[in-house]
Amino acid sequence: MQRALSVSRVTGNRGTFPDWYQAVVREADMAEVSPTRGAMIIKPWGYGVWERIQQTLDRRIRETGHDNCYFPLFIPLGFFAKEAEHVEGFAKEMAVVTHHRLKLIDGKLQPDPEAKLEEPLIVRPTSETIIGDAFSRWIRSHRDLPLLVNQWANVVRWEMRTRLFLRTSEFLWQEGHTAHADAEDARAETLKILEMYREFAETVLAMPVIAGEKPENERFPGADNTFSIEAMMQDGKALQAGTSHYLGTSFAQAQNIRFQDDAGQLSYCHTTSWGVSTRLIGGVIMTHGDDDGLRLPPAIAPRQIVIVPMLRDKPEDAQVLEYGQALVKALQERFALGEPIRALLDTKAQRSADKRWNWVRRGAPIIVELGPRDAAGGQVTFMRRDRLRDGDKVQSQAMTREAFLEAAPALLAEIQQALYDEAKARLDGNIRSDIVTFDELAEYFGAPVDEDEGGAFKGWVRAAWSRPTGAELDAVEERLKALKLTLRNAPMDQPQTCGTCLFTGKPGVEEILIGRAY
Amino acid sequence: MQRALSVSRVTGNRGTFPDWYQAVVREADMAEVSPTRGAMIIKPWGYGVWERIQQTLDRRIRETGHDNCYFPLFIPLGFFAKEAEHVEGFAKEMAVVTHHRLKLIDGKLQPDPEAKLEEPLIVRPTSETIIGDAFSRWIRSHRDLPLLVNQWANVVRWEMRTRLFLRTSEFLWQEGHTAHADAEDARAETLKILEMYREFAETVLAMPVIAGEKPENERFPGADNTFSIEAMMQDGKALQAGTSHYLGTSFAQAQNIRFQDDAGQLSYCHTTSWGVSTRLIGGVIMTHGDDDGLRLPPAIAPRQIVIVPMLRDKPEDAQVLEYGQALVKALQERFALGEPIRALLDTKAQRSADKRWNWVRRGAPIIVELGPRDAAGGQVTFMRRDRLRDGDKVQSQAMTREAFLEAAPALLAEIQQALYDEAKARLDGNIRSDIVTFDELAEYFGAPVDEDEGGAFKGWVRAAWSRPTGAELDAVEERLKALKLTLRNAPMDQPQTCGTCLFTGKPGVEEILIGRAY
Ligand SMILES: [Zn+2]
Ligand SMILES: [Zn+2]
Repeated sequence: MQRALSVSRVTGNRGTFPDWYQAVVREADMAEVSPTRGAMIIKPWGYGVWERIQQTLDRRIRETGHDNCYFPLFIPLGFFAKEAEHVEGFAKEMAVVTHHRLKLIDGKLQPDPEAKLEEPLIVRPTSETIIGDAFSRWIRSHRDLPLLVNQWANVVRWEMRTRLFLRTSEFLWQEGHTAHADAEDARAETLKILEMYREFAETVLAMPVIAGEKPENERFPGADNTFSIEAMMQDGKALQAGTSHYLGTSFAQAQNIRFQDDAGQLSYCHTTSWGVSTRLIGGVIMTHGDDDGLRLPPAIAPRQIVIVPMLRDKPEDAQVLEYGQALVKALQERFALGEPIRALLDTKAQRSADKRWNWVRRGAPIIVELGPRDAAGGQVTFMRRDRLRDGDKVQSQAMTREAFLEAAPALLAEIQQALYDEAKARLDGNIRSDIVTFDELAEYFGAPVDEDEGGAFKGWVRAAWSRPTGAELDAVEERLKALKLTLRNAPMDQPQTCGTCLFTGKPGVEEILIGRAY
Repeated sequence: MQRALSVSRVTGNRGTFPDWYQAVVREADMAEVSPTRGAMIIKPWGYGVWERIQQTLDRRIRETGHDNCYFPLFIPLGFFAKEAEHVEGFAKEMAVVTHHRLKLIDGKLQPDPEAKLEEPLIVRPTSETIIGDAFSRWIRSHRDLPLLVNQWANVVRWEMRTRLFLRTSEFLWQEGHTAHADAEDARAETLKILEMYREFAETVLAMPVIAGEKPENERFPGADNTFSIEAMMQDGKALQAGTSHYLGTSFAQAQNIRFQDDAGQLSYCHTTSWGVSTRLIGGVIMTHGDDDGLRLPPAIAPRQIVIVPMLRDKPEDAQVLEYGQALVKALQERFALGEPIRALLDTKAQRSADKRWNWVRRGAPIIVELGPRDAAGGQVTFMRRDRLRDGDKVQSQAMTREAFLEAAPALLAEIQQALYDEAKARLDGNIRSDIVTFDELAEYFGAPVDEDEGGAFKGWVRAAWSRPTGAELDAVEERLKALKLTLRNAPMDQPQTCGTCLFTGKPGVEEILIGRAY
């Protein structure tokens, strides 16, 4: 089993995994806590990763036929009340706008009582209701279907206990919303998106995931089926990294989304929704980070190759800078992973050793240090961030300029693959399928530990279950909760036959993943 | 003088300019009014234009050294109270979040009194205060300066009377925020951005503008100087299309943004802010639209060349489609205006004549109609949207496939230029500089007309003024207001000497633009 990470180099002392995470977010200059309770400030390097996620995923969303739109931030309260399960699921975490003006009263600026809204507005926690309302106007006939839209937006779900990227009151995401003529079309869409997310997470984020269906108790409020991709973090916990929901006709009924078929008959549409968020950035950090900070997969690194010139306030500095500029230019003309290489010459006024370590902590995939000897000799000396050290010693290698330019695309592709392979081995090696009773499960995971205290790395258990529902499922949930465990998903990839249910002793109908989770 | 547009073809009857605008927004499928009062739904074609604006402007913002970040949507009320002019300027239009939970009380879902926030949160109308707070933490020494950030975000300013794109309670924008060591650096930034906006508006939007400084009474709340670009719409009114503010040290003092210079002395930073918004889309519509709907400059058209296959449910349809697909592919491999050509084969199940008119109304720059004869003969028959008609007659032209592929990049560049030239001639031809007294001004503009009633096209007046301030300026503003006129800006480009002030009779110190405005 993979040990929990030590945190010595990033945090200055050994600590828990949450300490390490917080230190990496800070030292990699990704984000910081904001003075607005529960929200975050995403700094340039963190936002650059989000922009890379947006660009690469947006391309996939378009290629599968979806159009980007923008819908209002504020949703009238009455819209939520139409779908009972949906509002129940979100009511406890909604930010409510009640006034549209401030006024100085008794020397203090406060909401103007005369500008109180007749109906409060909800800051969107998700947009099924307001988009469904538009769908009810846009859809007339079978020819308008499927209707496939997506939006990139901010959403707000009030959180009491927040952690940067993983759980914040405001976050950024994309939300896809589609309407179809029948269940078959809508289910196919739900699974197509699930597969899109899986491929995206594995190819772009180098983050292996298991795609599967969430159990009934973990469904999106109002959904018939919820599917997810689940990734294993370096502390063994699961991170739900994306979800895709088949909503049946419940939202269509609540909002009167109907179409006329060729026979002139009116029917309710079947709808879907799906999303991924800035939470993915937390997943990338906890999948690829190491003792020295972040390691970014080249596909999402805002800068893939960073060149640090070693300047000494001497005449030969000019030659080093010139050599560095030419190298950046030559790199930018080459392609890696299907796009022009993103190279940077870091000319900031700072000690070059500090710059190097900043880029190590930020996880730039390749860091080049250029000195006068490199410039004079036509050499390039560089470090691969994915294999920075041999033991404790930092490793670098040298090549001629021509050889480096030639090798750069393959090197970046190799780093992308190496990060994936490392994470894939961790995932595959840490799912136990030999645990078949609840007692064994309890014994394996041991007493629950406070999540801030670390604890031994455990991974997940994959076990047969009888897919209980209702009260029987509630009981399962309670027993797991006592161990701080949750049901993650029933993987799409299932065996032909199945053992006995770990919870009920009945014959199992499928296998399900169990683990601790974010 | 240019006549006001007739609206016959888009609206079905003659109407006013606002009627025409509304019809174009609807018929071009750009946006619609949302059920959330004052907000809009931006539909795929409208959002596609915004994405083009984002991509092309973002490139310019990066190239001038700015980094993208993301700051919280909600700003604690107390942050606004720190800068008196600023809060006064925005307090009347702020959306206020007061609760973080809903509860079912007496069978009705409402804000939970137990979840009332101690301090209300303001939905950002602009982010100087929360970004300034971050700057106060991020800036320590002269080496941290200049600090140059930008964000793409949604903002909310409560509006009672809204119009799609031009004035909505929620809109999308970019806001740049920078901090500098001295006034000189900050002023240079303010003007650099003003020039960036001018170049962007003219090159990308094909919308000629006049860059200049706003008079004191039109400054951003809290700013020392506000500069704008002003564009002339086809009804003669001015649209403020972008602003750039030099904020002096007032925000830095309110938020304690200080740096240590080399001598160890602490000084306040000089800050700037600047932005453009989805309002630009309204400007594009009112600059380039015509009787048939929208005309989009190729640089921002989501699709530059749209191919409508004329299908007849006959065997030769397959040949037409195949020919069309090959044509799209060949176009996409070519570059126009520095980017791959954005071509589309419209295979939607709809009558081809309807499709053609939809693309005319949406303003696709080149519309190709492909029939069996084109496919058989290797021909391409197309319409240029910028010169759709000769008199009332729709014009099309035919070329061989090879000639069309060869000509396409130049054709798109020519359309971009033609739209600019047409708008530039209108701007240049409709600024009167021979009006030198207030009586002449009043006579020229005539009695104020209700903006929904059209009225004759008037353009602007450019006149010398003595740059009055305080009460004297208030008086000028009042006199203009009675004529529904406003001071737009004092153009950057000023003559050596200046006449007598149109308002005060004193010697003029600069020339200023006067007009009706959005
Ligand atoms: Zn169907
Ligand atoms: Zn300076």
